[in-house]
Amino acid sequence: MNLDLRVVSYYLGLMLLILSAAILSVALFAGVEHLVGGPADTSDLRALFLAAFGGAVFAVALMRGGRRAVDLLGQREALLLVALGWLVGAAIGALPFRIWASLRMDAAVTGHSFDSYINCYFETMSGLTTTGATVLQAIGTLPRSLLLWRALTHWLGGLGIVVLFVAVLPMLGVGGRRVYRIEAPGPTPEGVKPRIQDTARTLWLIYLGMTLLETLALRICGMDWFNAVCHTFATLATGGFSTHDSSIGGFESTAIRVVIIIFMVLAGVNFGLYHQLLQRQWRSVRKDPELRAYFAILAIAAFIVTVSLLQSGQLSPSTDAAMSTGAALQEGVFQVVSMQTTTGFCTADFDGWGFAAKATLLVLMFIGASAGSTGGGIKVVRIMIAVKVVLAELEHVYRRKVVRSLKIGKSTIDPELKLNTLVYVVSIAVLFGVGTMALMVFESHQDIDITTAATASAATLNNIGPGLGKVGASQNYGWFSKPSKVVMSMLMVLGRLEVFTIMALFTPRFWLRE
Amino acid sequence: MNLDLRVVSYYLGLMLLILSAAILSVALFAGVEHLVGGPADTSDLRALFLAAFGGAVFAVALMRGGRRAVDLLGQREALLLVALGWLVGAAIGALPFRIWASLRMDAAVTGHSFDSYINCYFETMSGLTTTGATVLQAIGTLPRSLLLWRALTHWLGGLGIVVLFVAVLPMLGVGGRRVYRIEAPGPTPEGVKPRIQDTARTLWLIYLGMTLLETLALRICGMDWFNAVCHTFATLATGGFSTHDSSIGGFESTAIRVVIIIFMVLAGVNFGLYHQLLQRQWRSVRKDPELRAYFAILAIAAFIVTVSLLQSGQLSPSTDAAMSTGAALQEGVFQVVSMQTTTGFCTADFDGWGFAAKATLLVLMFIGASAGSTGGGIKVVRIMIAVKVVLAELEHVYRRKVVRSLKIGKSTIDPELKLNTLVYVVSIAVLFGVGTMALMVFESHQDIDITTAATASAATLNNIGPGLGKVGASQNYGWFSKPSKVVMSMLMVLGRLEVFTIMALFTPRFWLRE
Repeated sequence: MNLDLRVVSYYLGLMLLILSAAILSVALFAGVEHLVGGPADTSDLRALFLAAFGGAVFAVALMRGGRRAVDLLGQREALLLVALGWLVGAAIGALPFRIWASLRMDAAVTGHSFDSYINCYFETMSGLTTTGATVLQAIGTLPRSLLLWRALTHWLGGLGIVVLFVAVLPMLGVGGRRVYRIEAPGPTPEGVKPRIQDTARTLWLIYLGMTLLETLALRICGMDWFNAVCHTFATLATGGFSTHDSSIGGFESTAIRVVIIIFMVLAGVNFGLYHQLLQRQWRSVRKDPELRAYFAILAIAAFIVTVSLLQSGQLSPSTDAAMSTGAALQEGVFQVVSMQTTTGFCTADFDGWGFAAKATLLVLMFIGASAGSTGGGIKVVRIMIAVKVVLAELEHVYRRKVVRSLKIGKSTIDPELKLNTLVYVVSIAVLFGVGTMALMVFESHQDIDITTAATASAATLNNIGPGLGKVGASQNYGWFSKPSKVVMSMLMVLGRLEVFTIMALFTPRFWLRE
Repeated sequence: MNLDLRVVSYYLGLMLLILSAAILSVALFAGVEHLVGGPADTSDLRALFLAAFGGAVFAVALMRGGRRAVDLLGQREALLLVALGWLVGAAIGALPFRIWASLRMDAAVTGHSFDSYINCYFETMSGLTTTGATVLQAIGTLPRSLLLWRALTHWLGGLGIVVLFVAVLPMLGVGGRRVYRIEAPGPTPEGVKPRIQDTARTLWLIYLGMTLLETLALRICGMDWFNAVCHTFATLATGGFSTHDSSIGGFESTAIRVVIIIFMVLAGVNFGLYHQLLQRQWRSVRKDPELRAYFAILAIAAFIVTVSLLQSGQLSPSTDAAMSTGAALQEGVFQVVSMQTTTGFCTADFDGWGFAAKATLLVLMFIGASAGSTGGGIKVVRIMIAVKVVLAELEHVYRRKVVRSLKIGKSTIDPELKLNTLVYVVSIAVLFGVGTMALMVFESHQDIDITTAATASAATLNNIGPGLGKVGASQNYGWFSKPSKVVMSMLMVLGRLEVFTIMALFTPRFWLRE
């Protein structure tokens, strides 16, 4: 059977229509702001409306050219849809930024990062993939409505990933399914379609509930409503875009930081577990092996980083004296949680920290959060499986006849999953290497160092945001050349869609008749 | 059953006795040289005799404390023996260097790299594992007898590896067996013991024959006998120790370089194929898939590096004018062959080459030579298997019901081998990362750059020798701190014994009763 491109076209249009509606909602916010007395420059308002309109026209055209699926989408069609959804979605989502840059009042006088479309594309991809890497040197130059749109891309992307990986893909039997089956054994599906919609709706409600909770908590701790909403979007999606150049470092309140730490940790948990919590399956949540490992890794890493900060006599950013134990603990825990959940918020410029602390953060970047969470990275459960497989293989060297069945918790890891997990780890390693080399080549004119190239590759592939060196916590990605930005946009979407989804499109057999 | 340490002790003693005999043979060479009128300083002669004597006493003690195996060695005993053979062998092999440093006439006046035992251990381990990384700043400070011993460690290690991986380990059913069975299908073993000895003897003869051939060829091209022998040892073992600080760059003759290129290429071929050639199985050799891939990779890499050298207007080391096409081809081919076979000879300081050339060399470091050759790295056949598995896994994402049996040539890759190969690749990646971090930590006092740390880790783990930056072609490893040298010695032996052999010793179950 040929790939049914018309079906793909229809559902892609539908996805883009939803995206355009989201842009429209931000346009309405901008309208209200200007009505109640915002700045005289209404370029953001016009840009948002134009973008929403343009996106909607394009979306409707795709839908009219396409065709609804009679039954379920085919596997290849679903994959192509997901990949295009992200790739084209970022192109549409970039429009408000790009149009605004042309319309803004001082466009003729001063330049802006968003004068280049690839910058806008990078920023939007970074938002939708919940990476949080920015091209902006001065975030404050954006009008509030565009800051909201920027944060909203995180929230939409985060929701998309959770619904995709916990509800939709497993039912289609695609991709990471076998990983997710482990932590969410649940009842066997009876008739697939109603169950997908059911689960998706529950997840949507959980996500919405957590959004309300965090917004309120941040408001109570003293943030204004606007910032509370923006930072909630960035936290729950493990995105990392802030409204401040100094990220969370711009908020001195310990209470705010604690709230953000808590919700980052919650966002890094498999959302399937919240679903189970709602069904009162306390025991299976409490005994979840990935959850336990996730907390254990966080605790160990926080300990190492805190001790390293104290030992190296790191100066406190505010007082210029050596950090107190409490301050080191706060900075250490915040940065560890931010890195492992792949959020990428910063309270300090960790690029200046000691090597042990930086190395720990780098390892966390690759481990990542739980499967089925909004976080990126390889994922804790995959690391667990890989470690067990390696140990078993080592024992096999000297005890050839012993065959042990490997388990995560009470579930046996089936042989296909072992292979799938290792292929995933190898793919991440290879993509990381290829990404690093591509950046070195494309930036060879400006003498980039390998630390910058390697951590930029790791930070985009694992959907984190900041890296080290010239992409450190106090830096940005604006200075990269266009080819590099394309490479990193691809790394972001590769990492976000768990590698295979995108890589599969590059195998010739994908496009052949079945 | 408990690990039978007495059996291990007996055979370890036997191995060390052979090593001591090798030291003794070099002592005899030194004796003859001094008799026919060598330098007045006989410290090398005395050091070699003392080392041979000390090694022999230790070896005999081990044998007397041990016990012959009644039948075959157990798998765990065999593994432990192999690991200890390399670890303790390097300790004994380091004695001539260390003793000489104390005895030499100017010991009281000037220091020498070999005044430190860890330096001698690193150098010997680098020799036995055919890595070729040196701690020596000025190789010419060594007496000729010790230069010969240094080259001989390569030759012994190279022979050991071939016999081990082509003849012994596959029969014991240990380790890489499943990889090697693919390229050397041959007749099924009838009664294991005679066949091991048979194969081992044939391989020994092939190795010896190639040694004679290359020595003659180099002599004919104008090298003196001493240098011809030393460089032959270093070539066939894909080691890389030279008698000159500027490596093969010290020999301007194109003929010499061509001979060395040819024999490096030959040393990177599976020695099982030579065995097949002697049995006149032309067809199976010609159709060998790994052999074809090995040549294809060499050709492609040589093309890239040569073009890169011409494009970047690289200066010729001798004339200071831009390189001619012929010169670029010669330098490019030499360095590509030297890197992929993991020999590590240099004719130019490639650290100054363009990024494309350096990146290609870096990738070759990890690909490495053929399985069952004297070369290191991941090995071509493993790369082939890994690529096929990844592609199959990608297809599996969108065609879940299609099951293809993967083949290398005509042999089907069995599922266990797939897993084993991927675990191997992941292990190399992890060890490379851990090695790099360990070097960064241990050298943090002297502000090491990440290029140096990463390529030092890669060059020792893959048994190459030179890396980039401060371990580049014109540099050495002498400046590292002691802990780093221990780390790199471990990386060398891990890489040489194909990772699993050593890592298995670190799993608790290895030491438990069976």
